[in-house]
Amino acid sequence: MDEKKLSELLDRFRAGELSRDDIIGHLRGLPFEDLSFAKVDHHRALRWGFPEVIFCRGKRPDQVALIAQQIHATGGNLLATRATPEMYEAVRERLPEATFDEIAGTISCASAPPDPLPGRCLIITAGTSDLPVAHEARETARMLGLDASLIADVGVAGIHRVLHFREELEAAAVIIVIAGMEGALPSVVAGLVTAPVIAVPTSIGYGTSFGGVTALLGMLNSCVPGTAVMNIDNGFGAAFLAFRIISTQKRIGRTQ
Amino acid sequence: MDEKKLSELLDRFRAGELSRDDIIGHLRGLPFEDLSFAKVDHHRALRWGFPEVIFCRGKRPDQVALIAQQIHATGGNLLATRATPEMYEAVRERLPEATFDEIAGTISCASAPPDPLPGRCLIITAGTSDLPVAHEARETARMLGLDASLIADVGVAGIHRVLHFREELEAAAVIIVIAGMEGALPSVVAGLVTAPVIAVPTSIGYGTSFGGVTALLGMLNSCVPGTAVMNIDNGFGAAFLAFRIISTQKRIGRTQ
Amino acid sequence: MDEKKLSELLDRFRAGELSRDDIIGHLRGLPFEDLSFAKVDHHRALRWGFPEVIFCRGKRPDQVALIAQQIHATGGNLLATRATPEMYEAVRERLPEATFDEIAGTISCASAPPDPLPGRCLIITAGTSDLPVAHEARETARMLGLDASLIADVGVAGIHRVLHFREELEAAAVIIVIAGMEGALPSVVAGLVTAPVIAVPTSIGYGTSFGGVTALLGMLNSCVPGTAVMNIDNGFGAAFLAFRIISTQKRIGRTQ
Amino acid sequence: MDEKKLSELLDRFRAGELSRDDIIGHLRGLPFEDLSFAKVDHHRALRWGFPEVIFCRGKRPDQVALIAQQIHATGGNLLATRATPEMYEAVRERLPEATFDEIAGTISCASAPPDPLPGRCLIITAGTSDLPVAHEARETARMLGLDASLIADVGVAGIHRVLHFREELEAAAVIIVIAGMEGALPSVVAGLVTAPVIAVPTSIGYGTSFGGVTALLGMLNSCVPGTAVMNIDNGFGAAFLAFRIISTQKRIGRTQ
Amino acid sequence: MDEKKLSELLDRFRAGELSRDDIIGHLRGLPFEDLSFAKVDHHRALRWGFPEVIFCRGKRPDQVALIAQQIHATGGNLLATRATPEMYEAVRERLPEATFDEIAGTISCASAPPDPLPGRCLIITAGTSDLPVAHEARETARMLGLDASLIADVGVAGIHRVLHFREELEAAAVIIVIAGMEGALPSVVAGLVTAPVIAVPTSIGYGTSFGGVTALLGMLNSCVPGTAVMNIDNGFGAAFLAFRIISTQKRIGRTQ
Amino acid sequence: MDEKKLSELLDRFRAGELSRDDIIGHLRGLPFEDLSFAKVDHHRALRWGFPEVIFCRGKRPDQVALIAQQIHATGGNLLATRATPEMYEAVRERLPEATFDEIAGTISCASAPPDPLPGRCLIITAGTSDLPVAHEARETARMLGLDASLIADVGVAGIHRVLHFREELEAAAVIIVIAGMEGALPSVVAGLVTAPVIAVPTSIGYGTSFGGVTALLGMLNSCVPGTAVMNIDNGFGAAFLAFRIISTQKRIGRTQ
Amino acid sequence: MDEKKLSELLDRFRAGELSRDDIIGHLRGLPFEDLSFAKVDHHRALRWGFPEVIFCRGKRPDQVALIAQQIHATGGNLLATRATPEMYEAVRERLPEATFDEIAGTISCASAPPDPLPGRCLIITAGTSDLPVAHEARETARMLGLDASLIADVGVAGIHRVLHFREELEAAAVIIVIAGMEGALPSVVAGLVTAPVIAVPTSIGYGTSFGGVTALLGMLNSCVPGTAVMNIDNGFGAAFLAFRIISTQKRIGRTQ
Amino acid sequence: MDEKKLSELLDRFRAGELSRDDIIGHLRGLPFEDLSFAKVDHHRALRWGFPEVIFCRGKRPDQVALIAQQIHATGGNLLATRATPEMYEAVRERLPEATFDEIAGTISCASAPPDPLPGRCLIITAGTSDLPVAHEARETARMLGLDASLIADVGVAGIHRVLHFREELEAAAVIIVIAGMEGALPSVVAGLVTAPVIAVPTSIGYGTSFGGVTALLGMLNSCVPGTAVMNIDNGFGAAFLAFRIISTQKRIGRTQ
Repeated sequence: MDEKKLSELLDRFRAGELSRDDIIGHLRGLPFEDLSFAKVDHHRALRWGFPEVIFCRGKRPDQVALIAQQIHATGGNLLATRATPEMYEAVRERLPEATFDEIAGTISCASAPPDPLPGRCLIITAGTSDLPVAHEARETARMLGLDASLIADVGVAGIHRVLHFREELEAAAVIIVIAGMEGALPSVVAGLVTAPVIAVPTSIGYGTSFGGVTALLGMLNSCVPGTAVMNIDNGFGAAFLAFRIISTQKRIGRTQ
Repeated sequence: MDEKKLSELLDRFRAGELSRDDIIGHLRGLPFEDLSFAKVDHHRALRWGFPEVIFCRGKRPDQVALIAQQIHATGGNLLATRATPEMYEAVRERLPEATFDEIAGTISCASAPPDPLPGRCLIITAGTSDLPVAHEARETARMLGLDASLIADVGVAGIHRVLHFREELEAAAVIIVIAGMEGALPSVVAGLVTAPVIAVPTSIGYGTSFGGVTALLGMLNSCVPGTAVMNIDNGFGAAFLAFRIISTQKRIGRTQ
Repeated sequence: MDEKKLSELLDRFRAGELSRDDIIGHLRGLPFEDLSFAKVDHHRALRWGFPEVIFCRGKRPDQVALIAQQIHATGGNLLATRATPEMYEAVRERLPEATFDEIAGTISCASAPPDPLPGRCLIITAGTSDLPVAHEARETARMLGLDASLIADVGVAGIHRVLHFREELEAAAVIIVIAGMEGALPSVVAGLVTAPVIAVPTSIGYGTSFGGVTALLGMLNSCVPGTAVMNIDNGFGAAFLAFRIISTQKRIGRTQ
Repeated sequence: MDEKKLSELLDRFRAGELSRDDIIGHLRGLPFEDLSFAKVDHHRALRWGFPEVIFCRGKRPDQVALIAQQIHATGGNLLATRATPEMYEAVRERLPEATFDEIAGTISCASAPPDPLPGRCLIITAGTSDLPVAHEARETARMLGLDASLIADVGVAGIHRVLHFREELEAAAVIIVIAGMEGALPSVVAGLVTAPVIAVPTSIGYGTSFGGVTALLGMLNSCVPGTAVMNIDNGFGAAFLAFRIISTQKRIGRTQ
Repeated sequence: MDEKKLSELLDRFRAGELSRDDIIGHLRGLPFEDLSFAKVDHHRALRWGFPEVIFCRGKRPDQVALIAQQIHATGGNLLATRATPEMYEAVRERLPEATFDEIAGTISCASAPPDPLPGRCLIITAGTSDLPVAHEARETARMLGLDASLIADVGVAGIHRVLHFREELEAAAVIIVIAGMEGALPSVVAGLVTAPVIAVPTSIGYGTSFGGVTALLGMLNSCVPGTAVMNIDNGFGAAFLAFRIISTQKRIGRTQ
Repeated sequence: MDEKKLSELLDRFRAGELSRDDIIGHLRGLPFEDLSFAKVDHHRALRWGFPEVIFCRGKRPDQVALIAQQIHATGGNLLATRATPEMYEAVRERLPEATFDEIAGTISCASAPPDPLPGRCLIITAGTSDLPVAHEARETARMLGLDASLIADVGVAGIHRVLHFREELEAAAVIIVIAGMEGALPSVVAGLVTAPVIAVPTSIGYGTSFGGVTALLGMLNSCVPGTAVMNIDNGFGAAFLAFRIISTQKRIGRTQ
Repeated sequence: MDEKKLSELLDRFRAGELSRDDIIGHLRGLPFEDLSFAKVDHHRALRWGFPEVIFCRGKRPDQVALIAQQIHATGGNLLATRATPEMYEAVRERLPEATFDEIAGTISCASAPPDPLPGRCLIITAGTSDLPVAHEARETARMLGLDASLIADVGVAGIHRVLHFREELEAAAVIIVIAGMEGALPSVVAGLVTAPVIAVPTSIGYGTSFGGVTALLGMLNSCVPGTAVMNIDNGFGAAFLAFRIISTQKRIGRTQ
Repeated sequence: MDEKKLSELLDRFRAGELSRDDIIGHLRGLPFEDLSFAKVDHHRALRWGFPEVIFCRGKRPDQVALIAQQIHATGGNLLATRATPEMYEAVRERLPEATFDEIAGTISCASAPPDPLPGRCLIITAGTSDLPVAHEARETARMLGLDASLIADVGVAGIHRVLHFREELEAAAVIIVIAGMEGALPSVVAGLVTAPVIAVPTSIGYGTSFGGVTALLGMLNSCVPGTAVMNIDNGFGAAFLAFRIISTQKRIGRTQ
């Protein structure tokens, strides 16, 4: 039935009765494939410009592998986050071309490379311990077509380190700042640039860092306005927000 | 001395030795005016494209008025948030042309209207009690040159209300979603659109709403990736982030 | 002595001096069997319509097995929750007919199948990671005679997924909604139906999900009135509340 | 247009082409009236069997009065909770027949008395200080057609007080238990009955009662399964859940 | 030097110049033995009527054994709490007569049995999972000379279980009530008796039990006055308070 | 009926068939007087040796006065805590002999002076700001027949102040230690004496004192075993616990 | 008696049998004056080099005045913090020479000006709203003999503002950094200097600033080591720590 | 280039055009060595008088070893905290002369012994379980040139233990007080001395010690003014603060 409806739509599209946007608009409303324990939502690729990403924590390796295969089978690009080596092994058995970033804990498998988006997405971290989150952000950003680069270990303890990269900061279209402990780096960075700053607190620290809550609170209370705050360790979400910002830029730019 | 240096720079600029960007780059590094109890930072207008905004809470009416006058005297556009009617009276004595939005608690005084920016900034609220925060966001957005509009009271209790505005949501360049209680609206909205969604929790609710903390936590833990979260009741910051997103768009677009 | 009293009651019952309700009323007050480290309360079956359920966490496998045997010996239906495979092994040595649901972590042993109750108890989850809690609810519901069915992975990120099951939602007598992260699904579901909605937060998530506290707070602060909230991961309690609702229905209905 | 559609539906209904349920089903999907700062949702009366209730906190008296008038004008029954005497005055100017329960803080105005529902809804409180919440629950329950009665001040400090009302407890179709401080009463009550128990923590107490959080936590962690927990002081929500339970009972009973 | 001073005191005591109480009073002020990493305070036996108890958590087995030996060498009675089997092995190598209560995690070694104190110290638990804490309390109480007995698994879910032991409750000189989850049992018990009730919250529960915090808060907010609350899982402290109460009784009684 | 039963009991008592303890035992089980919004429990005087105390917060002056009159009418001794001057005025209109302690906020009216109990109840405070709580404890203690005295402002900042009162501390049968801020005084006191120490945290302090939570936590985690902890500012409960301890002492002493 | 002892000491001092340090050492152990509700500790001036400071919150104006008079009468320098204008009026009636800093809320009355101490104590604030705490610190510092100066409003939003004062920062012997919101300024300052940095969080902010807790946590988790953290708004304590540091410096310096 | 600049500076220094302070001032501003995942900041040795310390948690052994080698290669003294034996093994492979303190978890490697600083840094702990933190402080202090000594296990439970060390306390230039549980020791110590007291809460305790939060809160709320508080278990930071205090002393002293 859905296929019938889709056929009609496509015929009308070829006949010029519908624009491509009309087709996409219709497709966004179509139902999703039922996979018993997980509804794979292939149309999300159309709605969000990207397939459903697998958040691996709390799933078994075989569940991850099955969902990965399902996504890949429909031609989608696959990204799995918070994956363990065991999960990667389970996925690789079904998708030998899948790759694994060990620091990030991400499994990637791009059927078709994403369209490159304009504007640099700069990722900077306050310390070396923040690297896993930064890698998750970078891997996600690249799978989304962003031009992402990473500068590590430029915390506010040595403010001249931050100032050293002032040019890179000013050139970026969006900046993801990743910090644990007191989470002060986003305030300093956002005070230096006009671009949107996405702050990601990390669970780095001890005692009253409370697993990242202190960094999170510091970022939410930044004295510099216009900083976007993410959940603790959410490098994936930060990259996705960068993607929303830059792809909207492109869309708005097109319509101007 | 600074003036001398500035004169030199401007002379060299007129002589073609320096570009306009060179001038701006130099100006960004210049010091700030000393006002004893508050350092007014006129160059922030150059660095951020906007003068220093006065956060009124914890200041006395006469302090607010003095800072306002100082900003205005240098030709800057003035925005004061969380202002009381008493503060407005104190400002109006010095700046009769200042206006007051009672719901937002904002004082505005635009010496020169800001350049209009492309792309709609849509503000939606879950309930009518969220309006003060929404007004703060709208007033700020307008002072920053954004094309801001507001849709109120479309909470998830009646999901058809949200779907009713689907077209408006899809057309926006950036969406500010303001909600108290369980803070679920940003998830639903972000699931419907590709544009960046800025979520602002409000202190609306009672008991375990904990003055907006519950809404904040809900937003930070959204199952839809790419939502930017702000501090509780921070309509100003949300608008400023929208400004960063859209103005960077324009800047990046220019260089493409 | 209690037995003597019971004999007398039963004789008077046979003689028509007491109704069946009188007998049940008397039995409810009788004491419980003493098992040294645990008081097994066989009369709870009469008071609640179900024997004491074993909450396994914090007990040793041999303790679980001993209590299980004691319950089974008196002809009761057995349900043990949060059981490990080791506990199941210990129980199976004494009760070979006991079964184990690995996802739910429940041990069941029904001496006599419970009377089926009218009305569908629908269990839905926001994600696949919520399945263990959903299975615990389903296994419990079935041991209590409820007609329970499960729909998984219909979170608010894709609101059309929820709307897709609107008919099933409207047909249910009671709906158990299980969600982690921001816990927004119960609000959306409760906004669509008139039936009682039982919301179960799960410990799924990371960072500020705080082991399910965020989902719990979201549910307690739902903007839709009339949602019953359970402790985190308490699938058992949710099913028990569904049982209380539906069995009371039957009882009240009988007396109308 | 909607009216046209509605006319058609009703004509087809009169012609026997559509059942009453069909009509109701269609109406549930219709849009809502736009009131600028608040979307009044008259169809909620059909979807939930009751009009939108006004939660007054955070609204101005004139806003409350305007929404009240709007609801009344469409023939709906009005309930406003957490209302101040000032709000009542504003409402009474527009709706002279509205009444005010001072302890509950509720404004009521029933255009048409609701259909009485079968089954007693028993409300009990642990102390006299819990009365405002109990009154809110009772007023709401009555506006919803429930047969509600109230027993006050039977806390667990004197367990014989609770046992004194054992018959009333066993006869109820649903029991709302309202308690502050340690919030232990719902556990004791739920241990005595089979009916669903709705536990409402109150903000009564001092020091570590944390404005009701301690009572809430006690209720969420009840050792007796099947207790529905509400937000702190949420007497309205408790009554609404009782309404969902009893009205579903009736609906399910009808279809058996 | 101290020995010289002690000799003098004792000589004067034998000469009748000083009473026994004078001697004890002097001894209380004497310094302590230095053991490099732990100051063993043998005079605490005089000040408190009991030697220093070893809290084993955070100590290494060899440290525990060394302190144990030191205490034993001076003729003191030894009690070590929160001990692991490994620690017991280390102690037993030096003190073969030491015994281990596996459930309590206590190591005991009584050089001289303590004087029996009058009055029953009754320990009751709400569930079987509370037994480790109850055993720690019982072992401590016995080492202190108290007449301690234990009743397990009489939670408020079945209030008749509690009432069943009413006589035992009324006969006790002090009652230690141990409960996890909502921690309601102390309120019910304290409402039934005049004796002091010592409430010990346990870390039993899940989700919002927060490792015993909920039970603790419930106990602190008991609606029955005069309940002494201890830290979570602190069976040792509860027994010590019982000892302070009963031994003071004896002392005061003596002076009446 | 109850009266008839009571008459029978008393006749049998006069006839020597029942002891006085038998009578008291029976009376403890009798029901309570119904006062609509508050169940006055006159038998509590028998069960606890004291009438129901009125906790005034959250009650209206007229409610307080009505309950006070009811208690007084049955010959009970009255104590009302957390009373405002307005409440006292309302009570005095009905009970002219009632007295008011302004610092404590207690209303007292002793129909018959309580029997004096042996053993000193010493109350000490860390600072002068703790006096309201100390007065509440002292007034309560006196109404319960305790020999209570008060030493104020001996905090640990000057440890010699504490040591100065060492004799008074050692002579007491029970010590109530009242402290805000870091709440360290109970540890120091409990380290000096064998008597039971009742620790009452107060809401004195600022910033991270969190309204007394810090003092409470300090007391719960005392390194000295056997300290009884009360809710924040609960001077009444501390005195009641002292009463339970000393009256039980007397009871146990009698039976030895 | 104490006077007698003091006389003896002084005679022996004049006779050369005791050094001045011996006298001071003895005086430190002498008791304190009893003022019923407050123990005034005149010897603290000797032990700490400063009289007891009155923390006014929670005290009545007349209590403040009485303590002030008592301190003044013994020739001590008086400092009262968190004082209201009413308290100042009460004090001024008894001590006309007392002065009041309205921003700081401090009452001062120096009988003898304190000895000036070497080394600059620099106080800097992140915003103008932090001024009350900064004034409290400055007033306290001056009463303690410190050379204190204040720089206001140099938050990290404009990092060049901080760098502008680099010379002042490097010249200071101790730096008190006062900041609310995210509390990042102490990290940046401590990264620039070798001197000890005392960080004081303020309750400035809104929403998740949680009354200064966020700033406090940021300071405790500073990525720059060696920052001393104070309680929220504790300007007094910060100055006192500065005094301890600088006076010890002097003492150590003298003995080198 | 930097080397060239450095050469120039040094030449000018030799020529007397620049003072040594000028050189140091210039060096402080020079950039840092880029090590890809970690910016090693060799100039920190100049700015702070000490090289960058490696905080090992969250780093891999090979990362620790690489940074250690890099620091050592430039002639710096190395200190690594929170190191595991595995990390030490990795470091020792590259730096055979590195030593490991097992209790402290610190790796040290001093190329050149630091200049000894005047004034005793006294470290005292409340219990034996606090020793790891005390060792971290002592190791750090020694690497910084401080004269550090340690007294363990002198908690407030036996106040005479503390008073026993009064002379040592009064002689110290700075005192680091380490305590878990209720964290009361710093208050008592700070009340006895004039020197600055650095309070370090430890994660020692159970239940409501909340991993050291209770001790931290107790220290922040000390009734004795002028106590510096550190993050939980932060022995390193405490030693660093002691270093800042004492080295500034020396610097200020020099300039007097």
